[in-house]
Amino acid sequence: MTTREQNDFLTQTGPGTPMGNLFRRYWIPALMSKELPEPDCAPVRVKLLSERLLAFRDTQGRVGLMDEFCAHRGVSLWFGRNEENGLRCPYHGWKYDVTGQCIDVPSEPEESGYCKKIRLTSYPCVELGDVIWAYMGPSELKPPLPGFEWALVPQAHRFVSKRTQECNYLQAMEGGIDSAHVSFLHRHDLRSDSLHASRGAELTRETDVRFEVIETEGGMLIGVRRQAEPGHLYWRITQWVMPFHSMIPPYGDNALNGHAWVPTDDENCMSWCFTHHPTRPLTEHELHAMRNGGGIHVSLLPGTFRPVINKDNDYMMDRAAQKANQTYCGVRTIAMQDAAVQESMGPIQDRTKENLTSTDNGVIMARIRLRKAALAAQQGKTPDGLDPKTHAVRSASIVLPESVSFHEGAADALKVREGAAPISV
Amino acid sequence: MTTREQNDFLTQTGPGTPMGNLFRRYWIPALMSKELPEPDCAPVRVKLLSERLLAFRDTQGRVGLMDEFCAHRGVSLWFGRNEENGLRCPYHGWKYDVTGQCIDVPSEPEESGYCKKIRLTSYPCVELGDVIWAYMGPSELKPPLPGFEWALVPQAHRFVSKRTQECNYLQAMEGGIDSAHVSFLHRHDLRSDSLHASRGAELTRETDVRFEVIETEGGMLIGVRRQAEPGHLYWRITQWVMPFHSMIPPYGDNALNGHAWVPTDDENCMSWCFTHHPTRPLTEHELHAMRNGGGIHVSLLPGTFRPVINKDNDYMMDRAAQKANQTYCGVRTIAMQDAAVQESMGPIQDRTKENLTSTDNGVIMARIRLRKAALAAQQGKTPDGLDPKTHAVRSASIVLPESVSFHEGAADALKVREGAAPISV
Amino acid sequence: MTTREQNDFLTQTGPGTPMGNLFRRYWIPALMSKELPEPDCAPVRVKLLSERLLAFRDTQGRVGLMDEFCAHRGVSLWFGRNEENGLRCPYHGWKYDVTGQCIDVPSEPEESGYCKKIRLTSYPCVELGDVIWAYMGPSELKPPLPGFEWALVPQAHRFVSKRTQECNYLQAMEGGIDSAHVSFLHRHDLRSDSLHASRGAELTRETDVRFEVIETEGGMLIGVRRQAEPGHLYWRITQWVMPFHSMIPPYGDNALNGHAWVPTDDENCMSWCFTHHPTRPLTEHELHAMRNGGGIHVSLLPGTFRPVINKDNDYMMDRAAQKANQTYCGVRTIAMQDAAVQESMGPIQDRTKENLTSTDNGVIMARIRLRKAALAAQQGKTPDGLDPKTHAVRSASIVLPESVSFHEGAADALKVREGAAPISV
Repeated sequence: MTTREQNDFLTQTGPGTPMGNLFRRYWIPALMSKELPEPDCAPVRVKLLSERLLAFRDTQGRVGLMDEFCAHRGVSLWFGRNEENGLRCPYHGWKYDVTGQCIDVPSEPEESGYCKKIRLTSYPCVELGDVIWAYMGPSELKPPLPGFEWALVPQAHRFVSKRTQECNYLQAMEGGIDSAHVSFLHRHDLRSDSLHASRGAELTRETDVRFEVIETEGGMLIGVRRQAEPGHLYWRITQWVMPFHSMIPPYGDNALNGHAWVPTDDENCMSWCFTHHPTRPLTEHELHAMRNGGGIHVSLLPGTFRPVINKDNDYMMDRAAQKANQTYCGVRTIAMQDAAVQESMGPIQDRTKENLTSTDNGVIMARIRLRKAALAAQQGKTPDGLDPKTHAVRSASIVLPESVSFHEGAADALKVREGAAPISV
Repeated sequence: MTTREQNDFLTQTGPGTPMGNLFRRYWIPALMSKELPEPDCAPVRVKLLSERLLAFRDTQGRVGLMDEFCAHRGVSLWFGRNEENGLRCPYHGWKYDVTGQCIDVPSEPEESGYCKKIRLTSYPCVELGDVIWAYMGPSELKPPLPGFEWALVPQAHRFVSKRTQECNYLQAMEGGIDSAHVSFLHRHDLRSDSLHASRGAELTRETDVRFEVIETEGGMLIGVRRQAEPGHLYWRITQWVMPFHSMIPPYGDNALNGHAWVPTDDENCMSWCFTHHPTRPLTEHELHAMRNGGGIHVSLLPGTFRPVINKDNDYMMDRAAQKANQTYCGVRTIAMQDAAVQESMGPIQDRTKENLTSTDNGVIMARIRLRKAALAAQQGKTPDGLDPKTHAVRSASIVLPESVSFHEGAADALKVREGAAPISV
Repeated sequence: MTTREQNDFLTQTGPGTPMGNLFRRYWIPALMSKELPEPDCAPVRVKLLSERLLAFRDTQGRVGLMDEFCAHRGVSLWFGRNEENGLRCPYHGWKYDVTGQCIDVPSEPEESGYCKKIRLTSYPCVELGDVIWAYMGPSELKPPLPGFEWALVPQAHRFVSKRTQECNYLQAMEGGIDSAHVSFLHRHDLRSDSLHASRGAELTRETDVRFEVIETEGGMLIGVRRQAEPGHLYWRITQWVMPFHSMIPPYGDNALNGHAWVPTDDENCMSWCFTHHPTRPLTEHELHAMRNGGGIHVSLLPGTFRPVINKDNDYMMDRAAQKANQTYCGVRTIAMQDAAVQESMGPIQDRTKENLTSTDNGVIMARIRLRKAALAAQQGKTPDGLDPKTHAVRSASIVLPESVSFHEGAADALKVREGAAPISV
């Protein structure tokens, strides 16, 4: 049973909240590098953990992420002029560098030193894997850079997208942890989407499925086993890495897929979608499919990160396709099936009304882990998942003898091994 | 003078409110039968008395009305698969029958009996008069089926529509009780709308009009009298039946018209519109007119129950038509004239600012009757209007000698008499 | 430092607030005369200082401004019939004259005198300068009529427009007081907009600019000086007149420009824009430009007072034009540049986060003056700016010897002198 207090604790990530403080200990995907395509390009509004921020790239190519509003009179710096290594407020010309430091107040004589006293809240950023990551916590606690494989492979091996989701991050992330829904929600798509094709059919046979959850140093493994050839089990293993990363079990030679579920505010999140192959560039076929909303990616409304299929159009519900078993829930594409059911829970799922079962163990343990980490961090304990080594993991799908425990039998498959292809059947 | 407390008492019908508890003692029009056109058709979202519900028709044709959200993780069952006598949540396949009983939790072994413990809030439904009625109260207090004539005549004698209204049910219903506004708001339409034509012209003469209100077993009669031939009075008699039904006085051989004003939530209601003729099928002319927004019915935006003429387009106000006496208030069609002025009072009319006169006696007495019934029901008293005999009434328009009281002189006219035409001049 | 309490005090103008009480002591621009173009024309909804009102012009051409809602059952009188020297509610025919006095309740015998007891809140209006002004304060404190020059010159000398702005009046008005932003926000437009052309180029040179603020009987002068020919200073002088009027320094022979910033509610205001020339009719060229959104005026969405360039379309931000120095902030037209940055502060600017400098002295002093006046009015003191003589002022731009103080040297230029052209270089 989740209490109201527990639900609030887990779902609120604004400044000063326990979970917000925890999240601020990690590097957080803030925007895509290509959203700031070149030096002195247009600044971009970014909302993260309920904070309204502005991102810009200065003349030297450095990225700044700071309070959206000028320290003088509160004008949005989105209207600012980005030039000569700084962003200038259009109202009275106050200028800031990428650290948020005010470097010019035209009305004050330079010798007064006035502008030195003005500094906007600003967060250090790093670009890694075509993503601009921000660190929003105390500077003395800044962790090493992220170590996710998708972010470290050559660019041609990777495809990154993001989409807005109209619900709290937690119910979205729980969908990423929850292997059990695949056999239902995505049943008919596993057969038809070429990026998910191989062995997918097996998932629709629901005999003797078991779920096992194992804690790891940086998060959690969720293993789902099904009967394979006699004496063997077919394991599909999801990785969850603190605080909001998940990696989907692979199929055959398909690329690996993962997500980050980043709170925008308490009622919205950004669903980051990462596809990468450790040992080969993505094919033109794969890229074409993903650019058109295939796999875990979705088609977006032009000029936005909002999916074409969305709440306002009832997710383009197609009852005939549902009836004809072309989709299980009437919504097209795997990603939007997830988004649709997650958003349907309401902006913040009321977990006091839930009835959880054994297949929800992954979800339950992630909640416990997050809550514990937030409480421990309040006491000064370093959270798990800060060490980039804990990011260097893979999901896997593997056939193991019945006698072997999955995390031991798949130990190698679950590590990033440079130059080695994923273990995926 | 209505106090703030009294206004809240009358207008709030959510779970646990006194008025909500009262309304939950009655059969309530929930949706039209044709919204669930066949077995295993698409489920429909229904909001009633501030509760978010889902309606569906199972393989055997039975109707279920239950909590919209799955008991497992809170997904909207609107995305559900309706098949094999139950609705299956698309997320993890939990299945419910029309009683809200969970009948399958795929992840749990059947022998565990787990699903037997899961039951969604669900309300019994009955289909009567092309309408699906729900009973949302305590099961031991369920009343007999409704006895309204419009619901019991052969289908060809009846036309049913519904439309959303953007205000509390009470101010909408008060419009249905309030005979006095007809001579003003609808003045020019009574001459031009063929479904309301006969004798309408008389209503525009405002000499010596009197209002009399008489309580009945199940509600109230509102009699409006005007001078007729010497020694006689022309009476137009409205019926109000608890808790939210009203019947408009008829004209000539026109069909009878009535409404039910059903709370969606405290700031919205569904205006149900019932037209029937006791002794003959409706004509093609009448049906054609009503399908096109004639009489008490309105044209709706495609795929919705929202009127084409609505608040967002300022009710297509036509000042030239108002000036030219084609409409009294500038809005086209009788039904939308009512809706426009009622919605203009705000989502919940502030009755503390009213100034009521003798012509508002019907409205005043309905409020008192509802409040008394709600308070009495709290003390265990059975509310009026549950007995279907109290529904078997008709509105009437009749000329009576001056010496006769209207409810005695019109006693026969005000009863449903099978095979007898309405008394209507 | 502005505290939360001070910010609330200044920004809240609803009934019963100290600032609301102060504003209600003045004549307030309520709507344009042409919005009520002829006797018995359509009534118009007006929201002023958070009050929902209705304006209409009766058969004799008199203007009424009163509570939007009928005293009987709360229907909006916007649906009313305007005829025979009164506005009649369409619901039951109650009729009101321009003073809000009920003059007919059809259901009550005239001899009962019932309607005499019914009176809607109503505010006296006066038409002056193509504007309908309302007085919303206590009748015994009604001040003399406004004395602004723009309102008193012949009609051909004047152009009036208004536009809605999606923020509190104060941050909009502060933009009108704030001369310092002109050199930044409007930098490139001062060169290209012919209505602002002359001497504008000088404003972009930022050497040795000083601001001086002088209190006047009815408000404040804000003088901005720049170096002119040796021994001389170029002064641009803005007038602020209590409680919400501002006058922009002129250029050459251009017409004079001024604003009134009138609260609609606490999160919206009406920006009134007044252009006039004291000694000549406006030219066809000037009128054409202003009708098309030139100068301080803007293009509006048809049938509304909402600018075409607005928040919902991100002010049609043109980054290329910004980069190419065609606009400083990427927004087209001077008026919308102001509106864009002001609205970007949020519905009510959070002044607790400001950092003000010496160039904000005008803004600071206006806040102090307003607060003091509101507090003094509570103690019974008559506010400044009620006397029409205090309205008879002009802004000016003038070159003065260095030895002369600007308010003395420009004393004549700052007065309305009938028949004398503005002092403007």
